[in-house]
Amino acid sequence: MSGSFDAVSTLNGIYADKIEASLRALCESKRGVIPPRLLKSMSYSLLDGGKRLRPALCLAAAERNGVRAERAMPMAGALEFLHTASLIHDDLPCMDNDDLRRGRPTNHKVFGECLAILAGFSLMIWAFEHALSGLVSNGIPYEAAFRAVSFLCEATGPEGLCGGQTLDTDRESQSADRDFVYEIAEKKTASLIRASVVTGALLAGASDEIVRRYSEYGEHVGIAFQIVDDILDATGTAEKLGKTPRKDEAQDKRTFVSAYGLDGAKQRAERESARAAEALSPLFPGGDLLITLAEQLAHRSR
Amino acid sequence: MSGSFDAVSTLNGIYADKIEASLRALCESKRGVIPPRLLKSMSYSLLDGGKRLRPALCLAAAERNGVRAERAMPMAGALEFLHTASLIHDDLPCMDNDDLRRGRPTNHKVFGECLAILAGFSLMIWAFEHALSGLVSNGIPYEAAFRAVSFLCEATGPEGLCGGQTLDTDRESQSADRDFVYEIAEKKTASLIRASVVTGALLAGASDEIVRRYSEYGEHVGIAFQIVDDILDATGTAEKLGKTPRKDEAQDKRTFVSAYGLDGAKQRAERESARAAEALSPLFPGGDLLITLAEQLAHRSR
Repeated sequence: MSGSFDAVSTLNGIYADKIEASLRALCESKRGVIPPRLLKSMSYSLLDGGKRLRPALCLAAAERNGVRAERAMPMAGALEFLHTASLIHDDLPCMDNDDLRRGRPTNHKVFGECLAILAGFSLMIWAFEHALSGLVSNGIPYEAAFRAVSFLCEATGPEGLCGGQTLDTDRESQSADRDFVYEIAEKKTASLIRASVVTGALLAGASDEIVRRYSEYGEHVGIAFQIVDDILDATGTAEKLGKTPRKDEAQDKRTFVSAYGLDGAKQRAERESARAAEALSPLFPGGDLLITLAEQLAHRSR
Repeated sequence: MSGSFDAVSTLNGIYADKIEASLRALCESKRGVIPPRLLKSMSYSLLDGGKRLRPALCLAAAERNGVRAERAMPMAGALEFLHTASLIHDDLPCMDNDDLRRGRPTNHKVFGECLAILAGFSLMIWAFEHALSGLVSNGIPYEAAFRAVSFLCEATGPEGLCGGQTLDTDRESQSADRDFVYEIAEKKTASLIRASVVTGALLAGASDEIVRRYSEYGEHVGIAFQIVDDILDATGTAEKLGKTPRKDEAQDKRTFVSAYGLDGAKQRAERESARAAEALSPLFPGGDLLITLAEQLAHRSR
């Protein structure tokens, strides 16, 4: 780690205000168009002070490939919509059955299950609509926008995020194999984090070689992120996490901690962080914030 | 009605086999790629002998604007994916809580709520992915594919289908206004039927004037379709419907029958059918199957 410099906070400092303003304006623009209670439920979860890591990664990748953040913003918004949708569904009684998210009651606790499901559904479709129309009206060429949105679909559909949620929550889909935790993490967490940087590069029309490097970076950052999440769940407090800790253990979930122990999980997080950094290093011989972010990820504490 | 000629069966006869074969091949292509139980749950509801009205309308509209059915098929599939997703969610315990659909146990009855929600989620995202990549690889120009997929997003998102499901199932979102049943039907049913014909026209690069006529046609066909659904729910048997009848009444749902009485609802269905037919008439001075279909819709019995 580079002293007290915190790469996630620095990345946040560059993009968070712009992302927040864009998400608020989007919700505001739908007043009178979307049924009021549905919009309220969607906004409740979308505007809840999340870290905005995925949109920030997308904007950073776009800017490093020559597209200004403002032009890439529709994709950043879409990523946060999709991430929020997955959290709403994850918390449902039939999935993780969680009451607390980012320190507040979960969506279904406030709006009921029916509206929570529809809010997730809505955010998801709105994500694709917003990315498609927004990117093209921001002057991104059709083909680049098309490739980016297609990648986003694949990352979040049954081969990606939805598949990962299945493996994570459906008992009968689970395997006793120790490496099964990798498969869950790859689909459930890494697929959307990888899509964040890859879509940023794709909408900028980056070469296949560059896209491949961002893809590898996102994959390893995503896995490291999930391992640390598992470690924090096993060791953190509700106050610090903003959600109920020790849920994994209580639900007998398969996690990196249950599969490899606390020390084993920490070592694996370090290794994933290092591989993420290596993937981008050749593109930035003088170093880069994204590389530092990957290096620091194994040590995050919230 | 034109004697014993049945326009829906005729449309079905032209397209259903091709649509069925395409849906089966799509599910088959995902073996080993999507977690097995998730794919099973998706296929269970997708390949259940539905009428395939929406994809057939899309292919018919595409062909009438110069694009062969084979090339438009990815959009037809996407429409059926989305329709199926909405039915799976509609049947959930927290929504309509239905045990029977097309004569078989509903998805959550067979696979549980968690997998049913994820199967709906998955079909929805797969729809957009499949439409985007399939249309472009079938040689539909990027811009036309984009316009069609964007329209599909809007029709199914919080301003369309998801909004309609909210109005239909969320007590606190309901209004005592008699015309409220129109608003539900417009968003919940008509939006996707309109999208079926409009996307067919859009991907064929039809002019704004032609798209507007298909849009009007689809809107009125959709409303007529919902009115007849309400009439059948109030008068049909489980055997004939393949689902539990009188659910609307039992759940105190706002329907065209409860708002306007049985005769009032029938008259309204006739009027919507007539307006649908009028919208397309100028394009087909010699008549057309789509016009006959609209005219016959008010009299369908299942």
